[in-house]
Amino acid sequence: MNICRTKVQLKHAVKEAKQQGKSIGFVPTMGYLHEGHGSLLRAAREDNDVVVLSIFVNPMQFGPNEDLDKYPRDEQRDLALAADCKADIVFIPTVEEMYPTKPLTSIKVADVTERLCGASRPGHFDGVGLVVSKLFHLVEPNSAYFGLKDAQQVAVIEQMVHDLDMNVKIVPCPIVREPDGLALSSRNVYLSALHRSEATVLSASLNELAEVLMFNGEMTAEQCINLIKDRITENTSGEIDYVELLQYPSLTPVSPKLSLQRALSGSRFIVALAVKFGSTRLIDNALFQVEEVIERV
Amino acid sequence: MNICRTKVQLKHAVKEAKQQGKSIGFVPTMGYLHEGHGSLLRAAREDNDVVVLSIFVNPMQFGPNEDLDKYPRDEQRDLALAADCKADIVFIPTVEEMYPTKPLTSIKVADVTERLCGASRPGHFDGVGLVVSKLFHLVEPNSAYFGLKDAQQVAVIEQMVHDLDMNVKIVPCPIVREPDGLALSSRNVYLSALHRSEATVLSASLNELAEVLMFNGEMTAEQCINLIKDRITENTSGEIDYVELLQYPSLTPVSPKLSLQRALSGSRFIVALAVKFGSTRLIDNALFQVEEVIERV
Repeated sequence: MNICRTKVQLKHAVKEAKQQGKSIGFVPTMGYLHEGHGSLLRAAREDNDVVVLSIFVNPMQFGPNEDLDKYPRDEQRDLALAADCKADIVFIPTVEEMYPTKPLTSIKVADVTERLCGASRPGHFDGVGLVVSKLFHLVEPNSAYFGLKDAQQVAVIEQMVHDLDMNVKIVPCPIVREPDGLALSSRNVYLSALHRSEATVLSASLNELAEVLMFNGEMTAEQCINLIKDRITENTSGEIDYVELLQYPSLTPVSPKLSLQRALSGSRFIVALAVKFGSTRLIDNALFQVEEVIERV
Repeated sequence: MNICRTKVQLKHAVKEAKQQGKSIGFVPTMGYLHEGHGSLLRAAREDNDVVVLSIFVNPMQFGPNEDLDKYPRDEQRDLALAADCKADIVFIPTVEEMYPTKPLTSIKVADVTERLCGASRPGHFDGVGLVVSKLFHLVEPNSAYFGLKDAQQVAVIEQMVHDLDMNVKIVPCPIVREPDGLALSSRNVYLSALHRSEATVLSASLNELAEVLMFNGEMTAEQCINLIKDRITENTSGEIDYVELLQYPSLTPVSPKLSLQRALSGSRFIVALAVKFGSTRLIDNALFQVEEVIERV
């Protein structure tokens, strides 16, 4: 496994792979890897000749009061998981290597960043767009793999790639969960035992909503949102940041009175939530497709 | 010469060249080509295996009251000049091909866009950044060639390429002039006979300034600017948009009282001007390097 700490090393390794006509699959991460990242690496391994993993806690996507400094890091464990998943190249730059000078260039994606985490974390997706754009230019991947836990991130990156004619295929991958349903996240490590047990409400409430939508009678968007909010506030100490139901991937609002069962066939919706347990903010979501019946996708 | 009107055709041609290990030199233009563009194509021809020319009048870089609709176009003449200069691939997309949907992604370069044409033409360089970024992703050039008549554009693109780690070398090329000194521009065709003759004041005043700076006594930044402004207002009907003296390529201001002869050795300055003759806005500039003496570069 080729560990590159500088852009020059990485570009050299990429050039060699390209010259041999090899396809490159890319998994950009902030490290502290878990089985969610593992599933991305395995998908990349399956599809490509060369797998590149990047590990970089990108300061540009953290707000001034967010958890940049205490974001968990464990390089040795990350490298072991990367090796397990048969990554070929691991790019681990320092902040100075990625940003040798203060960047004057900014990338903004309108509309799709207006709600959900874009509203709660101003500037977050500008930082994501900038670093992903830099990494795409450095790695020149054929395909890049992103987890659907960050469904809005996937939508933002797909829009950016489309608008800028970037020559990379974005591959969204399913959320990976603990046996009790909690979506894997590097931030789960922050949770106290109580909060860890309460945090199952996120996936449990999404599952309950899915059951109701798929097998029971009509529900409006507002009723869907209220069902989830009620479960969280009734059963846990979690503080709701947002629970929203939007069209996907445009992330445009729907009328609160819209009956999902009566939405246009082919419509896709996301139910997305962000909830704080103590100082730890967790997100989760479910995607639904309306056909003759509503399916979870 | 391979004429591509769609992105798919272009990407196919680029892929073929890449697979053969060929280097690509790229000249992005808005068409209505003149010898300025010719010099870029010849520079690209000299350095590369494959030369790609793009011709696209990009609506995103024109303001609402600018000359988008009447911007001159002559595809047949452009293709003849491209063939003369031995271009291999010419990309001529429609607006719908370049922007099939309204782009939600915007690219802004701070600081370097604040003055000169960035101040006179709000949004202009956002449009330039967007289209150049799209074209770089489509053409994947090793090198891209830009004329120094648009010195601010060169500075903006160099900053963007640096900040986004784009894998392309930017090659700035000298201004090409008519025998009487007027910088070549597609917009020169708009000038009346009187304005055409008056417009030589731009290069003449820059030349006079260069003589004074290189061979005569000390001058402050303010005196340099006033010399040029005086020549324009004394001798022509031209309406000054701006005359500025800035550091290059940062385009940061200098003190009006700065004596150029006493500036730090190695400093680079640009004297840039924009003047309207009738409804036609022309730009020109000169670059100076301070060593033991001041040199025009």
